[in-house]
Amino acid sequence: MNNYSSLALLTDLYQLTMANGYYRSGIADRESVFTLYFRKNPFDNPYTITAGLAHAIDYLQNFHFSAEDIAYLAQLQGNDGQLLFSSAFLGYLSRLQFSCDVDALPEGTVVFPNQPMLRIKGRLIEAQLFETALLNILNFQSLIATKATRVVRAAQGDTVLEFGLRRAQGIDGGLAASRAAYIGGCHATSNVLAGKLFGIPVRGTHAHSWVMCFDNEPEAFMQYAKVMPNNCTFLVDTYNTIEGVKNAIEVGKWLQTQGHKLAGIRLDSGDLAVLSIEVRKILDNAGFTDTRIVASNDLDEYSITKLKQAGSPIAVWGVGTKLVTAFDQPALGGVYKLTAIKNKYGEWQARIKHSETLEKASTPGMLQVRRFHKNGVWVGDMLYNEFTSPFERTQNIITEKNTSFTFDAQLQSTDLLQPIFRCGNLVYQKPDIHSIRQHTLQQMQKIHATQNYPVGWEQSLYELRQNLLKGNFLFQDSNIIQLLKGTNIRNKIING
Amino acid sequence: MNNYSSLALLTDLYQLTMANGYYRSGIADRESVFTLYFRKNPFDNPYTITAGLAHAIDYLQNFHFSAEDIAYLAQLQGNDGQLLFSSAFLGYLSRLQFSCDVDALPEGTVVFPNQPMLRIKGRLIEAQLFETALLNILNFQSLIATKATRVVRAAQGDTVLEFGLRRAQGIDGGLAASRAAYIGGCHATSNVLAGKLFGIPVRGTHAHSWVMCFDNEPEAFMQYAKVMPNNCTFLVDTYNTIEGVKNAIEVGKWLQTQGHKLAGIRLDSGDLAVLSIEVRKILDNAGFTDTRIVASNDLDEYSITKLKQAGSPIAVWGVGTKLVTAFDQPALGGVYKLTAIKNKYGEWQARIKHSETLEKASTPGMLQVRRFHKNGVWVGDMLYNEFTSPFERTQNIITEKNTSFTFDAQLQSTDLLQPIFRCGNLVYQKPDIHSIRQHTLQQMQKIHATQNYPVGWEQSLYELRQNLLKGNFLFQDSNIIQLLKGTNIRNKIING
Repeated sequence: MNNYSSLALLTDLYQLTMANGYYRSGIADRESVFTLYFRKNPFDNPYTITAGLAHAIDYLQNFHFSAEDIAYLAQLQGNDGQLLFSSAFLGYLSRLQFSCDVDALPEGTVVFPNQPMLRIKGRLIEAQLFETALLNILNFQSLIATKATRVVRAAQGDTVLEFGLRRAQGIDGGLAASRAAYIGGCHATSNVLAGKLFGIPVRGTHAHSWVMCFDNEPEAFMQYAKVMPNNCTFLVDTYNTIEGVKNAIEVGKWLQTQGHKLAGIRLDSGDLAVLSIEVRKILDNAGFTDTRIVASNDLDEYSITKLKQAGSPIAVWGVGTKLVTAFDQPALGGVYKLTAIKNKYGEWQARIKHSETLEKASTPGMLQVRRFHKNGVWVGDMLYNEFTSPFERTQNIITEKNTSFTFDAQLQSTDLLQPIFRCGNLVYQKPDIHSIRQHTLQQMQKIHATQNYPVGWEQSLYELRQNLLKGNFLFQDSNIIQLLKGTNIRNKIING
Repeated sequence: MNNYSSLALLTDLYQLTMANGYYRSGIADRESVFTLYFRKNPFDNPYTITAGLAHAIDYLQNFHFSAEDIAYLAQLQGNDGQLLFSSAFLGYLSRLQFSCDVDALPEGTVVFPNQPMLRIKGRLIEAQLFETALLNILNFQSLIATKATRVVRAAQGDTVLEFGLRRAQGIDGGLAASRAAYIGGCHATSNVLAGKLFGIPVRGTHAHSWVMCFDNEPEAFMQYAKVMPNNCTFLVDTYNTIEGVKNAIEVGKWLQTQGHKLAGIRLDSGDLAVLSIEVRKILDNAGFTDTRIVASNDLDEYSITKLKQAGSPIAVWGVGTKLVTAFDQPALGGVYKLTAIKNKYGEWQARIKHSETLEKASTPGMLQVRRFHKNGVWVGDMLYNEFTSPFERTQNIITEKNTSFTFDAQLQSTDLLQPIFRCGNLVYQKPDIHSIRQHTLQQMQKIHATQNYPVGWEQSLYELRQNLLKGNFLFQDSNIIQLLKGTNIRNKIING
């Protein structure tokens, strides 16, 4: 993933001030459940693809505060110039070890709004400290994997290469994007370090600068063919695209005499629809029917779709900036919420984050996603609360649009969140990157075979959520008492 | 910057295949000049702020291929299943050391389209291998620093805090963004690792989860005040904002009895314009006139401007996703072009990348930017070619809109690109991050004091560029011969 010696400080300062607060309030070890989910699919897409779990696992497994981290924290000051953290707390942090249970969706899984991508159960202080990094990792890779599925779909089976490193958002913005793009179905990347770190296939031939270093284009192509005869895709638009194709063809003839072939020509500017058709004719007329046309230049799923509609005979799509930055929506709004906590008597209490809008409220409980299917065809998804006894749960869901749907009792189903860690020990076998990509491609076939796919809250969970939102008394949850009797409680707590 | 053991593979594969080509063609050591620049300011902003140079310096200083890198490259295959790289070339790479001259704009400098942000002169093979990483580093940090200047300006002197890590594009997408946002004028970040690595001030108090862990909000605030009395900014919207403010005030009264103060309250949802005015009244009426209102929730320069226009008494702006991802334009389109190369006789030849549109064509030569000023006020910028003798250069510029402007001979001027490396040795004293930020703030005052600021090509450089674009013979540049006589050259080169 990366070689940062410690990522414990890859967090917002408030996680540490809260951790300090939990520690000093004696509730650091209180068992709690946090849920990582998002509220809205990106790009108005009908689904999201999860990605980043492998890196989240690395982060959690390696979680520790180094001596350097502690020394840094030890000198931070509050607004009165006094130190922010006590040495007792810092000592505690330096001994802190990951001990939580984690359940998560495997990478490459189709997920919908409000469904947990990851769930963490364990000590309050730990779960709090992991929030920012887990969001950073899962938000971005899921965003890019989702974007990639859209680009791959637009390309209708053609090869899609990810070329985005130079305009990615930082080093890891490039590396993580290359990984996620491959998970989302791209065939290869230009990013060599991503190839090395993650085992993704890498591709690339030459740039304009190669052509510009030689006295002329024919010499440049010829020289390239001599030294890299098994990797000849010529970029033909340095000076004039049509002349460039003719030059490439002449060198292609020479390659044939050497037992090699002209693999492709690349177009990187101009009207790709017009040029690709013209270039295809020139290649075919010269007998280079196997030579593929590669196109690049600010491509995304929208421009690929248009080119396809225009009948462009482009066979390989080089997609860069707009894929790796998810240009039209460069962030997934994933959140991480406390959804249950034990009270001092050891009883689980569901928790909800209220909000002015119903959509932004969280879902309480220990959440799991059940996906129903029949003969391999997906039927619908039910979000349910594992704290609720199976005997009190139903086969009904209520959707975001407030409609209900009942799953036939005969349907098969799969619970999607899988055990990743138990008491801090990894219990999950990380799949290799190629298996993850295959999983995505299979999921894409499943989801595209469905229509009006029902997704919702299991009925008793829906009712729990509604009751908590209305402020009804449940689970002896005194948040609610406070809502109903704010002033009295306030006076009682603060003024003793 | 980061602790990747080696970043030599942080590049596109085609840089390596081209490097192989240069090596095998015997031109790897040919002296060349590459220029890194962009064609269009982001966000329709009138300027761009450079950032990332410190990381580019780290990258270049540490540039090397590790044994692991070489082993990875050694097993890559071409499209015939044969190895892509020879062991001779890989041996050469493993011995390669950085030896170039680099000149660049100091971080925090105002730069305009077509002006070099960085220029590299040295062996062709080295300059080629650095392209992707330099673009990655400078494109992103300059983008975010520029965005930050816009946000800071909108805040009209208020404190701006960068809160974006959780939705940043990967780990380094967060770290590099925090650094660039500070360079652009933000006052602090929530990102603790950025604080540690880059020396940026860090800030943060608590999240909704703190409040949700306690039985009620008054208890949560009170407990926080007891353990972190010197860091009390309460987030008041977990359940009900107005009740939250009242709870905060009660705890604020207790803080005063302990010799501390209620530093602020934070609003994170709802109509910030309405709420901030109401909350300010409640705070003032209770005597908490020094308690500052902090606001967050999807803010950017546009929403801050609107809130300011509505008279919102918000004093501290927490800006996250839209800043660190540059949401409305998440990539700067920087490019890196060969602009001059020595021929085999050791003569410098200017090079240009042609294009269908004049705006996309590069500027040839060994480029420098001269900024003219008078009594501390900026007058205009001239892009000139250092290869042209000072006696043949003029005081005239031609702008992108094809108008001309003459700088008075009495004006003072500064050449903006500064020497960074000479023969691979660092000759530049890297300023600390606070000095860079100060430099940005000073530059902002300068640029905002100007109107219709003239920026253009020095006249003889403009003419060189036009001539190369028209295909005129200059510097015995045989690119041009090829353009005029494509077919003959093609036959001569390829068919001998």
